[in-house]
Amino acid sequence: MGNTLGKMFRVTTFGESHGLAIGAVIDGCPAGLSIDLNKIQEQLDRRKPGQSRITTARKESDTVEFLSGIFEGSTTGAPIGFIIRNNDYKSEDYEYVKDVFRPSHADFTYQQKFGIRDYRGGGRSSARETANWVVAGAVAQQLLNTLGVKVVSFVTAVGNVRVSSPYADLDLSKVDCSVVRCPDLDLANDMIKEIEKIKMQGDTIGGKIMAVATGVPLGWGEPVFDKLHAEIGKAMLSINAVHGFKYGFDKTDISSSRGSEVNDIILDESGLTETNYSGGIQGGLSNGNDIYCEIDFKPVSSIMQRQKTINTDGVAVEIDGKGRHDSCVVPRAVPIVEGMFSLILADYYLRSLANKI
Amino acid sequence: MGNTLGKMFRVTTFGESHGLAIGAVIDGCPAGLSIDLNKIQEQLDRRKPGQSRITTARKESDTVEFLSGIFEGSTTGAPIGFIIRNNDYKSEDYEYVKDVFRPSHADFTYQQKFGIRDYRGGGRSSARETANWVVAGAVAQQLLNTLGVKVVSFVTAVGNVRVSSPYADLDLSKVDCSVVRCPDLDLANDMIKEIEKIKMQGDTIGGKIMAVATGVPLGWGEPVFDKLHAEIGKAMLSINAVHGFKYGFDKTDISSSRGSEVNDIILDESGLTETNYSGGIQGGLSNGNDIYCEIDFKPVSSIMQRQKTINTDGVAVEIDGKGRHDSCVVPRAVPIVEGMFSLILADYYLRSLANKI
Amino acid sequence: MGNTLGKMFRVTTFGESHGLAIGAVIDGCPAGLSIDLNKIQEQLDRRKPGQSRITTARKESDTVEFLSGIFEGSTTGAPIGFIIRNNDYKSEDYEYVKDVFRPSHADFTYQQKFGIRDYRGGGRSSARETANWVVAGAVAQQLLNTLGVKVVSFVTAVGNVRVSSPYADLDLSKVDCSVVRCPDLDLANDMIKEIEKIKMQGDTIGGKIMAVATGVPLGWGEPVFDKLHAEIGKAMLSINAVHGFKYGFDKTDISSSRGSEVNDIILDESGLTETNYSGGIQGGLSNGNDIYCEIDFKPVSSIMQRQKTINTDGVAVEIDGKGRHDSCVVPRAVPIVEGMFSLILADYYLRSLANKI
Amino acid sequence: MGNTLGKMFRVTTFGESHGLAIGAVIDGCPAGLSIDLNKIQEQLDRRKPGQSRITTARKESDTVEFLSGIFEGSTTGAPIGFIIRNNDYKSEDYEYVKDVFRPSHADFTYQQKFGIRDYRGGGRSSARETANWVVAGAVAQQLLNTLGVKVVSFVTAVGNVRVSSPYADLDLSKVDCSVVRCPDLDLANDMIKEIEKIKMQGDTIGGKIMAVATGVPLGWGEPVFDKLHAEIGKAMLSINAVHGFKYGFDKTDISSSRGSEVNDIILDESGLTETNYSGGIQGGLSNGNDIYCEIDFKPVSSIMQRQKTINTDGVAVEIDGKGRHDSCVVPRAVPIVEGMFSLILADYYLRSLANKI
Repeated sequence: MGNTLGKMFRVTTFGESHGLAIGAVIDGCPAGLSIDLNKIQEQLDRRKPGQSRITTARKESDTVEFLSGIFEGSTTGAPIGFIIRNNDYKSEDYEYVKDVFRPSHADFTYQQKFGIRDYRGGGRSSARETANWVVAGAVAQQLLNTLGVKVVSFVTAVGNVRVSSPYADLDLSKVDCSVVRCPDLDLANDMIKEIEKIKMQGDTIGGKIMAVATGVPLGWGEPVFDKLHAEIGKAMLSINAVHGFKYGFDKTDISSSRGSEVNDIILDESGLTETNYSGGIQGGLSNGNDIYCEIDFKPVSSIMQRQKTINTDGVAVEIDGKGRHDSCVVPRAVPIVEGMFSLILADYYLRSLANKI
Repeated sequence: MGNTLGKMFRVTTFGESHGLAIGAVIDGCPAGLSIDLNKIQEQLDRRKPGQSRITTARKESDTVEFLSGIFEGSTTGAPIGFIIRNNDYKSEDYEYVKDVFRPSHADFTYQQKFGIRDYRGGGRSSARETANWVVAGAVAQQLLNTLGVKVVSFVTAVGNVRVSSPYADLDLSKVDCSVVRCPDLDLANDMIKEIEKIKMQGDTIGGKIMAVATGVPLGWGEPVFDKLHAEIGKAMLSINAVHGFKYGFDKTDISSSRGSEVNDIILDESGLTETNYSGGIQGGLSNGNDIYCEIDFKPVSSIMQRQKTINTDGVAVEIDGKGRHDSCVVPRAVPIVEGMFSLILADYYLRSLANKI
Repeated sequence: MGNTLGKMFRVTTFGESHGLAIGAVIDGCPAGLSIDLNKIQEQLDRRKPGQSRITTARKESDTVEFLSGIFEGSTTGAPIGFIIRNNDYKSEDYEYVKDVFRPSHADFTYQQKFGIRDYRGGGRSSARETANWVVAGAVAQQLLNTLGVKVVSFVTAVGNVRVSSPYADLDLSKVDCSVVRCPDLDLANDMIKEIEKIKMQGDTIGGKIMAVATGVPLGWGEPVFDKLHAEIGKAMLSINAVHGFKYGFDKTDISSSRGSEVNDIILDESGLTETNYSGGIQGGLSNGNDIYCEIDFKPVSSIMQRQKTINTDGVAVEIDGKGRHDSCVVPRAVPIVEGMFSLILADYYLRSLANKI
Repeated sequence: MGNTLGKMFRVTTFGESHGLAIGAVIDGCPAGLSIDLNKIQEQLDRRKPGQSRITTARKESDTVEFLSGIFEGSTTGAPIGFIIRNNDYKSEDYEYVKDVFRPSHADFTYQQKFGIRDYRGGGRSSARETANWVVAGAVAQQLLNTLGVKVVSFVTAVGNVRVSSPYADLDLSKVDCSVVRCPDLDLANDMIKEIEKIKMQGDTIGGKIMAVATGVPLGWGEPVFDKLHAEIGKAMLSINAVHGFKYGFDKTDISSSRGSEVNDIILDESGLTETNYSGGIQGGLSNGNDIYCEIDFKPVSSIMQRQKTINTDGVAVEIDGKGRHDSCVVPRAVPIVEGMFSLILADYYLRSLANKI
């Protein structure tokens, strides 16, 4: 269970890292949306392994094949099915984890929950799944674009190398000017150096990504359990290695600030506020300002070092790191964050149509 | 929409701050659970306004009335309906916001979304709704207790007064020894002083709460979109004034840590790990260790100061703070956090029953 | 589980026959709908026990109390909570079934499923629950009325006394001219006589109800699993004692007809067809013509005769009929059918808003 | 929307008649179920076009390709993705319906709902979609078989050629002894003759299918909206051309029977009843007896005759029948009915695990 995201713009995914293919069904995309397949592939290419010297060497062509729901260039209202074939998997690389549980991986918990485990490449727990999200998210983005909504995300920290300025002071058109996807190009260079250093040590490092949505109409979201930021948070926390989420408050600390400092004064009927500590959301509903949030990634647990653990018989063993992994996931996670953000916003757009008579 | 939480242990709520009553339906609670009504009321009393000098002066008897689903002291498998009458509301206190949008409140966004707004006491956007969550959560807790699962939460920060030690170093039996609900009683005193100072200034202050679940069996959660921590995060982000969530990593910073430092070594077949940076969850599934998370609350926006805003005609006006509000919500939010945590865990318990044949 | 109906216009109910109250939460009703409370109560009165000589003698005032979601006469977009207190229950009437399973009742299956049973008045299995549906359905009807959609239902059979003409030949304004709610007043008299005869014998008899919706816009429904007629069928089959459902084909037998006889020829762009064998639905979507269906009710199983059965120890025993029951449920089921039909249509109205961009 | 069936055993489908492929994702199948792929393909072959002289001449190899969720012969708890490529489509056969709405087809309603229509082979409205259901249903059947539950269905009517005996008097092992799938082989021959006669006339004819589930444990189902028979009914009404559904009562007419005639007397603690008018369900829950139901199919609307209709400009035109169609769908619908029945039962099996503590 738990392979469906969204209530009205719904994505249901499948696929293991080393199975024949991964894929998904998008259900609920309105009919009549022109689909630019190239833009979808471009977004998928931004997530692709092997794209630069700071990402994993695994090479996947990662070509998405749409099987249904699009006719003569437009969505038809029928579910959009797509698959991405897995090509470059080396399952033999994973024979060594067949009988052992890697530390801080999902090996142990999957085995306990299901009593069986597709150990090849991490199976369903692999971040390969996120390619599905990027494709589905790119469809959502095309829907949002028709409404003037844009979503962008970018790296704000790799280890201790951090962007300190509020996002409004950054030039977000420069995100892809650097392979690390930080729009502050000086910091970007430092981040790349940090990743390369960590990689040399066979280690991994955490990081942060910020995401910003502009042009979101007033009143998207729900008042109680499905608050807009709560669903965005859930979506971000679904991304592999994410351990933290906050929205708003990029100029100050949430928990030590005072109401008098951070209340956002409404300036006019568009909802524009003098400041935007609230992160574009009040009472769970979009208030007409930019929606922004920041996501914390832990260092990935696949390190190239010897570690202690237990095997499937419960016996203590040692294990060496193997396989092709990223030393820091945030550069490749940027399109994933954009995809998840877009999926949530598209869902709330559709939900908002039933607000009032 | 958005008034239901959970997939199998489901809570659907209703009620406005100044309506006749609030209430909820719990659907999916298994039959045969003995219900201790006193314990439910006790938990509700911990959330009650007017319980100490640092909380709002609003007085509500907050007595829960169960209408169905419990027979001769046990759940029957039928939905559990309950209501809590609203007694001490002073709607006339809110006439002044009828035509004006309070800064950083939900007034403006509700009006935009729905075209109509029950302005009395904030209507549906009031934290009064959380009383429903406490009641439902207390039922969930009784279910969890039969499985040996316990949930506790406590205040870790009020403004800059912060607990710095990991939760394992605290004596969690002392949470209720202080009205601020911080188990470090020295810090608790400082927190109380901070709140009183802030209150004198007609201002409000943010804070933090940590929550810990012990005894959670292996393998609760789902692998992809409904990861255990993602649903916990969503539940916490549903609480009024919450802006941030993280799980695990109470001894170090997530994003600047290295894999070699924070990988949790599995010690035996129970899943016990040497450290618990992962916060008891791997791959979205519980791994047998304590599950813990921390939640950031912004300062509530109801301040007793004059502020600029616009009225419903879009004209700039000034507004004075009125009504009876908390200067810091975290002390009363402790049982709310426990309630939400328990609801999520109960839901995953039921979902886990279908893991394997 | 299973106490929620609908995806966007959602009703979640609770309550047992002899508990304190029954009630429900309507979530998803759009804001800004004017609510006429009298009309809701009127519809509830049509379902009320004790309303005529052919219905059960149980007397319930059946007064609905709305607790939330309506402000100054309009819906606010917040969930609408309501309760109906149970007054005239005589639980002592049911002591005799505490330890015995009545034939063709839910006593045995509830006991097996839940291991516990609120035997008083049938508990959750009682048709008392349908009062909730009538109230919620009456709210849905008011939403539909703003769109020009009207729903009416009426009795077409009591035992072998049957309406043979197509509904178009009946004067549907006369439904309530007879206590049996058959618009053909001659047949209505025969039906009443039949019910009185059956009642004298301590027996019960089955019947049929037809329902017709007019003014349904084009394209409501979904193409595959949530076909409009499939959800209507499910809703009708949810009503106590219903065993059969068909839609369309009121002039001929479905399974022995030929395509050349029953294809409906489209006359113009409104979708108007020469005949309406299809019952107003094609491919699961409304086609602009009247939507109509017929529902089969079995005779209720509470008969005033001695029957064999087993007790809770598995021992064969005999049991006498007791309590106050209808000899034929169809007259009182008319507003229930209308309620369920309206709930489904309201749900599809909201879903249809997201059909296309 | 509406492309997902089930709450815990969930199937989400996609695909048009003449697209690249159809397929589905099964989410929620418990881990550890051994999968016999041959049995799945066999069931799919029973639905295949071109299998006998009384079915459509369209030839599809209909080979299912599983892409995920099965590892070393067992389910892993991960979603099971599969596709079936479309091979023998002749889209040019459908150019003639591009600008015209076929009578009693979904052409008109799809166009109205979505504003666009994939006219090739009926697109999403084609019964080709049901191949997905047969595959998913065959997986569900394998789950049910581990519990001793078996599902069988068979033809009970083609036009006026009808089985009159209760199903208990039939030899259900003979269903596949005849291409029409009626276990009474004499009647089967008459049915085949009827279909051939109708086909010669370029016409189509309705029919009936009965389905029986044996070995269903006590207490599957839900008390109120998700009654077991209500979900079965919905599933059956989802099948193309189905217009009616009833359960139980194969020995008498529902609506004209009396309670004293049709109450089922419980014989022992297994729930076995003397008669089984109830169709194995009481109060929405399985009662330990066979569950059986009957489904009415209208004649398919694709007839090989000239008919009047309108074109997409609203102008009255005439249209000739074309394409390769079944004259009677019931023989090929037998595995579809079994599939849908199995999907519902599997879902309720998983739901039943949370009945009580």
